[in-house]
Amino acid sequence: MHLKTCSLLAALCLVPAIHAQGVIDISAFGAKPGSGADATPAVRAALDACRKTKAAKLVFSEGQYDFWPTHASEKYLFVSNNDEGLKRIVFDLSGFNGLEIDGRGARFVFHRGVNPFLLDHSRNITIRNLSIDWKRTFHSEAKIVAVGKDTADLSITDAFPFKLENGLLVFTGEDKEVVPFQNVLEFDPVKRETAYMARDYWTGQNLPATALGPGQVRVRISKFEGTPGNTLVFGAAYRNFPAFTVTDSENFKLLSVSIYHCGAMGVIAQRSRDIDLDHVRVTPAPGSGRVVSITADATHFVNCSGRIVMTNCLFENQKDDATNIHGIYAQITAKLPDGELEAKLVHPQQRGFDFLVAGMKVELVHGPSMITYSEAVVQTVDRRNSEYTRFRLTTPLPAELKVGDAVAAAGPYPDVVIRNCTIRGNRARGLLLGSRGKILIEDNTFHTAGAAILLEGDARYWFEQAGVRDLVIRRNRFEDCNYGVWGKAVIEVAAGIDPKERAHNGYNRNIVVEENLFRQFDTNPIVSAYSVDGLKVRKNRLEKSTAYPARNPGSKPFEITDSVHVEIEDQ
Amino acid sequence: MHLKTCSLLAALCLVPAIHAQGVIDISAFGAKPGSGADATPAVRAALDACRKTKAAKLVFSEGQYDFWPTHASEKYLFVSNNDEGLKRIVFDLSGFNGLEIDGRGARFVFHRGVNPFLLDHSRNITIRNLSIDWKRTFHSEAKIVAVGKDTADLSITDAFPFKLENGLLVFTGEDKEVVPFQNVLEFDPVKRETAYMARDYWTGQNLPATALGPGQVRVRISKFEGTPGNTLVFGAAYRNFPAFTVTDSENFKLLSVSIYHCGAMGVIAQRSRDIDLDHVRVTPAPGSGRVVSITADATHFVNCSGRIVMTNCLFENQKDDATNIHGIYAQITAKLPDGELEAKLVHPQQRGFDFLVAGMKVELVHGPSMITYSEAVVQTVDRRNSEYTRFRLTTPLPAELKVGDAVAAAGPYPDVVIRNCTIRGNRARGLLLGSRGKILIEDNTFHTAGAAILLEGDARYWFEQAGVRDLVIRRNRFEDCNYGVWGKAVIEVAAGIDPKERAHNGYNRNIVVEENLFRQFDTNPIVSAYSVDGLKVRKNRLEKSTAYPARNPGSKPFEITDSVHVEIEDQ
Repeated sequence: MHLKTCSLLAALCLVPAIHAQGVIDISAFGAKPGSGADATPAVRAALDACRKTKAAKLVFSEGQYDFWPTHASEKYLFVSNNDEGLKRIVFDLSGFNGLEIDGRGARFVFHRGVNPFLLDHSRNITIRNLSIDWKRTFHSEAKIVAVGKDTADLSITDAFPFKLENGLLVFTGEDKEVVPFQNVLEFDPVKRETAYMARDYWTGQNLPATALGPGQVRVRISKFEGTPGNTLVFGAAYRNFPAFTVTDSENFKLLSVSIYHCGAMGVIAQRSRDIDLDHVRVTPAPGSGRVVSITADATHFVNCSGRIVMTNCLFENQKDDATNIHGIYAQITAKLPDGELEAKLVHPQQRGFDFLVAGMKVELVHGPSMITYSEAVVQTVDRRNSEYTRFRLTTPLPAELKVGDAVAAAGPYPDVVIRNCTIRGNRARGLLLGSRGKILIEDNTFHTAGAAILLEGDARYWFEQAGVRDLVIRRNRFEDCNYGVWGKAVIEVAAGIDPKERAHNGYNRNIVVEENLFRQFDTNPIVSAYSVDGLKVRKNRLEKSTAYPARNPGSKPFEITDSVHVEIEDQ
Repeated sequence: MHLKTCSLLAALCLVPAIHAQGVIDISAFGAKPGSGADATPAVRAALDACRKTKAAKLVFSEGQYDFWPTHASEKYLFVSNNDEGLKRIVFDLSGFNGLEIDGRGARFVFHRGVNPFLLDHSRNITIRNLSIDWKRTFHSEAKIVAVGKDTADLSITDAFPFKLENGLLVFTGEDKEVVPFQNVLEFDPVKRETAYMARDYWTGQNLPATALGPGQVRVRISKFEGTPGNTLVFGAAYRNFPAFTVTDSENFKLLSVSIYHCGAMGVIAQRSRDIDLDHVRVTPAPGSGRVVSITADATHFVNCSGRIVMTNCLFENQKDDATNIHGIYAQITAKLPDGELEAKLVHPQQRGFDFLVAGMKVELVHGPSMITYSEAVVQTVDRRNSEYTRFRLTTPLPAELKVGDAVAAAGPYPDVVIRNCTIRGNRARGLLLGSRGKILIEDNTFHTAGAAILLEGDARYWFEQAGVRDLVIRRNRFEDCNYGVWGKAVIEVAAGIDPKERAHNGYNRNIVVEENLFRQFDTNPIVSAYSVDGLKVRKNRLEKSTAYPARNPGSKPFEITDSVHVEIEDQ
């Protein structure tokens, strides 16, 4: 349905073109697909009109819309597992309740450092039928031409402009600004995945280089190994520009949206509930020739609740995991004389994450064992800065509480369904599952370089609260996973528990692995687990493959230690 | 007077130790001079107590107090002519009305990135009797050992730790963090000033270097010229840590305070009124051996009003001017269809400066001529982001208004007195005077590398509103000024006016220069001026000196063009 709008008149006299059913067409605000002009002011005006008229829907047309940060709105955002900062935002949906944005096939192309979508205290938002890409990506790609001792000779196309400065390789953007990287990783452009057993080289932002000719450079990377013909990907140094930032929001539906690129995670949701992704595709833009889609995890959910449902999605070629669903542990740093506790958000990308609020239930956790020894209710909260918070409990401090312990939300936890999704070709792992709600992972296809499914959590390094209580993994196809360096089993159940504390710990509970297909090119474990209470593995099918060179001939298909209530049937 | 306080009891039971007259002693909150512990939590608790009890005074004792950012409070600040950011603040005086902080001789030593003092919507604040220094400075210093073709061999002491990484020189801080620089400048450590005719080399943050031995490096700087034995100063790359940030405040007195170091300006005040500095000393810490005090201007005042008085101050060896008093021009970037105007803050360090408010009087200025063609009153303001603001006037737009023009506050402007101050050894200029209030500069001593007094302002590059209306410069001693590259006269009256527009422009008006001593080592102009309406130069004394090699033999003592009502007596 194409809406008839009085676009010229509306643009001139600022009468928004509103359809009888509360539908606003962006063209009424002067945005024309294919014009190459900055559509940001039109979006801001249209959103103002949506807000004023309580419109139900904002629609676009097929074709390309371009967006720059210049006229975007601005907000300081702490975004967990991404970088905090004063962000420019094109679609600032803060405070909206009830809005659908229908791209109707529109292609959104962003320029420079800008955030496409922000939901902040937003409710009942649906976004559909559009794609997100960047004119100049936040990562860079180069073809490996030759490899020498501690060097790689590279050929770089115009898509990733660069210069040599002070003997260093400097990638540049649309306006000659520096596009900083901090690591390199080799991809196989034929298989369209990270190269077999390729590892990250953490180069930092200053990589010595010399010119070899137009578009040709030699970079110096200590102990570099790589294969001529493969692609060397320069990973973005920062995570400032997620495609969708969702904070303190509820009921968000993302439907038939392609995220071809962004400079951070595809969807990052924090302190939010009821999120549905259907037919979301994280994949390199068709025709772009890129081996990498987005620069970090496809999706990521922190301290969320309600429902997280992902169906019919494609998560491929992103520079990190397909999803990670977890809570946050803060570290107790002081018991103050007046009975207050002081907690610190230790991981730099968790800073500013305001998870302690008066009235909430928290768990107190012993760091090395990760055992919850007490639950309590928060009475008062005094945020000192983005790292430190002081808080008081309604009840006396437990005797065993000591500095170095951790505190985390004791629920609510989200129920999770991930169904009929394809995860492949990305760096690192597939699904990191750390919710204590019901989790169902079914009918998905995995071809991941690391573990396809990882249960983790720790209170010492990443400070991610995890520990499942009801996880069913069934009817999935695990096709030649673990061809890289980021895992030791297809399904890996681990946690940052001190080895002395692992026996009968039960950090993860009630896991069923059934009716899956495991196609394996080697004898690496199918399931590796410790500190589990309740694990059933049954009716799975194992297939041999020759897709990659075999490794680790001595390993067994199941490596289960320090666990109870384990049932493993012959597969 | 030393106050007796129940410090241990107070620290334990949080009863602030309050003297009968509302005096709080920091020792009651656990801070002990010389302890080496972080006194920040004590300061925050003491300020909370001051707020609650409406205490009139917070006192310290002689000795050293240390402060880290770890437990400091936090606020996002746009600080004009410095860098914006989420700042950690030790003394956050936001909203205080009526408080005196008496250091009683205390030495405050800061560590890493932290802001000592913030006044934000603060009234009637006095700070006295303390010094401010850093354990590790934001700039670095090195001794020039030898100079080659495009190279300098340097010797660097432990006070400025460094490493070589990827062939680059990297200065490091207390916790091994990078201390970034972006330029180098040569100082004469015997004369304690910038070397004769030394210029800035804008190196950027990546300077190629090779090791010569312990504490010895060779750096590569294109066309470098320098003298062995002199000191090469690596200028701080950012201006994040002014000693005193004053915004939207009134009646601030800074008395007998020494600023030995900070990582930005010493005192930066914006949109504030009635500021008195007496016996403020910006100077390298005694015994530190440093040639540089602070990394930017000693003081700076933007869109201030009321009274700015600086008496008996010493501003020496800072990396930029002694003061700069000016307004801000925003550039008109669009006339919107509905009669609104859009303005942009062009200079990156002016971004976020919220100077347009409903009800204020503004002037509209033609950019190239800087002529004010209209005044008007602002009706509504819509801040779009930190760069762009839309606003509406109460009256129809003047016919001559066009995109590219500038808008600025049409007063109120501050009256300024600078008396009995000494300004010397710093990079660049002495006083930049751009207020349209009454300005009196008397009984000061100047020995500046550039112009001692500069009148500037432009709407094309720095976007600083200026133009004096009543300036008296009398009984000052100008001692061998202009030995560097930052000016062409001792008193320079300029402005960013298009040469075609300079005649009879009168951007600066009513300037009197009388009874001063000018000691001159060369024949450079004493006064250079254009576009002035009203200039009287009389009863000054000229002395010859041989302090530096003579230059520019052909120039005249007075170079006045495009001006009217000029009277120059025989000196």
